[in-house]
Amino acid sequence: MKIAIITIGDEILIGQIENRNATWIAQQCTEIGASVVHQTVVGDDSESLKRELDVARSRAGVIITTGGLGPTHDDITKQTLVDYVGDELTLNQSWLDLLKQRSTQRGRELSARNAEQAMVPRTATVLPNPIGTALGLLFTFSAPGLPACKCYSLPGVPSEMKAIMERHVIPSLREQHMAEKAASKIYLTLHTTGIEESALADLIGDIPLTGATTLAYLPSYFGVRLRIGAVDDSATSRIKGTMNREINRIHHIILERAGRYVVGEGPSTLVEILADRLKENGETLSVAESCTGGLLGETLTEVQGSSEWFMGGIISYSNDAKMNLLGVEQSVLDAYGAVSQEVAIQMCTGVQRQFNTTWSIGITGVAGPAGGTEEKPVGTVWIGIAGKRGAFAKHFLFGTERRVNRERSVGAAVSMLLLELSRIPHTQQHNASNSLT
Amino acid sequence: MKIAIITIGDEILIGQIENRNATWIAQQCTEIGASVVHQTVVGDDSESLKRELDVARSRAGVIITTGGLGPTHDDITKQTLVDYVGDELTLNQSWLDLLKQRSTQRGRELSARNAEQAMVPRTATVLPNPIGTALGLLFTFSAPGLPACKCYSLPGVPSEMKAIMERHVIPSLREQHMAEKAASKIYLTLHTTGIEESALADLIGDIPLTGATTLAYLPSYFGVRLRIGAVDDSATSRIKGTMNREINRIHHIILERAGRYVVGEGPSTLVEILADRLKENGETLSVAESCTGGLLGETLTEVQGSSEWFMGGIISYSNDAKMNLLGVEQSVLDAYGAVSQEVAIQMCTGVQRQFNTTWSIGITGVAGPAGGTEEKPVGTVWIGIAGKRGAFAKHFLFGTERRVNRERSVGAAVSMLLLELSRIPHTQQHNASNSLT
Repeated sequence: MKIAIITIGDEILIGQIENRNATWIAQQCTEIGASVVHQTVVGDDSESLKRELDVARSRAGVIITTGGLGPTHDDITKQTLVDYVGDELTLNQSWLDLLKQRSTQRGRELSARNAEQAMVPRTATVLPNPIGTALGLLFTFSAPGLPACKCYSLPGVPSEMKAIMERHVIPSLREQHMAEKAASKIYLTLHTTGIEESALADLIGDIPLTGATTLAYLPSYFGVRLRIGAVDDSATSRIKGTMNREINRIHHIILERAGRYVVGEGPSTLVEILADRLKENGETLSVAESCTGGLLGETLTEVQGSSEWFMGGIISYSNDAKMNLLGVEQSVLDAYGAVSQEVAIQMCTGVQRQFNTTWSIGITGVAGPAGGTEEKPVGTVWIGIAGKRGAFAKHFLFGTERRVNRERSVGAAVSMLLLELSRIPHTQQHNASNSLT
Repeated sequence: MKIAIITIGDEILIGQIENRNATWIAQQCTEIGASVVHQTVVGDDSESLKRELDVARSRAGVIITTGGLGPTHDDITKQTLVDYVGDELTLNQSWLDLLKQRSTQRGRELSARNAEQAMVPRTATVLPNPIGTALGLLFTFSAPGLPACKCYSLPGVPSEMKAIMERHVIPSLREQHMAEKAASKIYLTLHTTGIEESALADLIGDIPLTGATTLAYLPSYFGVRLRIGAVDDSATSRIKGTMNREINRIHHIILERAGRYVVGEGPSTLVEILADRLKENGETLSVAESCTGGLLGETLTEVQGSSEWFMGGIISYSNDAKMNLLGVEQSVLDAYGAVSQEVAIQMCTGVQRQFNTTWSIGITGVAGPAGGTEEKPVGTVWIGIAGKRGAFAKHFLFGTERRVNRERSVGAAVSMLLLELSRIPHTQQHNASNSLT
């Protein structure tokens, strides 16, 4: 099953906001085994949208659009689709009744603008929206000489788009995918950390790949993921077995050559792998953040159930906070400066004491763009780890861009802790496993 | 000047990582007055890339690609472009020398893999990379009957892509744009907060727009931005003046009808507006975060120079932390629970005391997916604000999704503080201004 995603909105096209919807939709489709073959962004403009629908239709059997279904005049998706398929709008009385009822519950009258959301294309299937006023819509495009194409049109508000995807679109796509016994892609991801992309590629060297197999290097600030992929074009179980064996073969070679950098496998993120490791060991973590301002805590608590092992942290953005809340000594600040090995170590041991945790991380650095000196230029970061065997800190020199420096600091901190945890024999066993997870 | 952006990489196409590069490139191009007309994502596949180059070329005079220039075998961009224009690779000795020199400085030998990065297409202009090994490349596509098209090919590593954009691509595009006296778009953004999209649209009602003028509603968790846009097709200064007058006319109507919700204007974010307001008043802020886990601190410290007004925070992810570090009382936790008005208020007053700040924010809630009860379902959040006039807290009921609940909490907190700050007469004056910023 091939899927194309069209994101609609000037604000995405001109870069005012991130296109997170497309990423999320692509993730969900990949998870059920479908192939996302095309992603595009169009502005709030009917002609562009029609043109992109033509392109998407030539590449995929399923199109998912997000955006442009709201109640204001710049929302052009519904009318454009109606024109595109030669349909017309008609009142959906039950949706109107539900919208009125929701308004009444909130002690308001339904505005004319929101009431218009109950006008729906006659030939489209409506996909109720449990949160907002815009209905999701399912069209079927058909034309002589072309295979039929399903087009799901969803709102752009992330929570509404996700709710309709989860309730209506994904179940239906999953069913279609199973029914078609469609070509599947199988992936296995190995997570490495503590080694950079080109060094890792040299270590692994050439691996003979058969036609349908791929090996991708995916660097991030946390480490390099290795994604082994196999396409199964005929979808018989015999071939599926072959594909699994092929993935296992490559997996083995990588573990032999670079196993010491592999800290986990599967679709999890490195933070989730860290979370699992801490939970397995019954250990806890706290953080002291200066230049990252909360980004490390935020990254750790993105994981569901993080309160089991993450106790909290202190954002010590000022020297006063470092002294009063973390016990960093004035004399140490004076002698070495706030961005120093000594302060990083006092920050992590201080927060470990305050929160009484097994492990702790302290980050202090110059994120930029201001605040750099010749001795400590922008991008200088010290990261301390306190644990069972005492505390240590490492020096990093990242780049000149604030956001990147903050993200790389968080990536390096998680990497350091994972490598530290990996010294425990348990990890070696974990690495030696080769099950497809 | 019309620009198309192509992002290359399976990891983006299948949703493993966010496509932040395209957003950033689009922002930069929009800022110099160019029109981004097309954005697309392709996998690590030569045929798809060639097909998308054809499409992009039919829509724009400038193409910017990002990704696929790395040193590993799944990086296919350079070879694909060489094939696409019928070029060949040749050694760039000065780049090879520089790569060797950089390696030596780092005490390593240049690997064969990285040395290959010095092989460049004969007809392309090279755009040196100050950070990494991959050169940026500039091709000129020409074909009978088609206008010439420039294609900038940049690495996918964000810091490298940005460095090459800033040093080479943007200056050259800006120059070309000026030379062409190309059609410009002018935008003015007004920031509202504390009112939802459809209510705001009702309040503003219909505004007669002339042909080239647009008004877009851009909702986010922080508020609704109103973006007034005018396209200047002839680019003479006489018309530019007309466009400015047209934007001013719409601006005035909006301020008359919905001015009390407008907290700022211009390209800044609401957090930057908050930062400016605090700095102007010489005031400071601290935060106490539970369910947001650091996201509020992170959002506030994204702003450059935030250490001037942001003193820090406490991530009190456990009840112990709430009591020990914020002075929340055991009896209050027992009587009302951690997610309650009383605890939100004790959190913000506690952190205000600890950091000795003018203002403080406390957030406590059930982010989900677990932890909800009938009385306090997932999505329940209390946000407290402590300031000059004491403390208060507001109740919110967001949705079921963890990430969204955390983001909406941060948006609501910033909105509450901005509205609270806007009670100061100063703000009214600010709103009444109508300069194009």
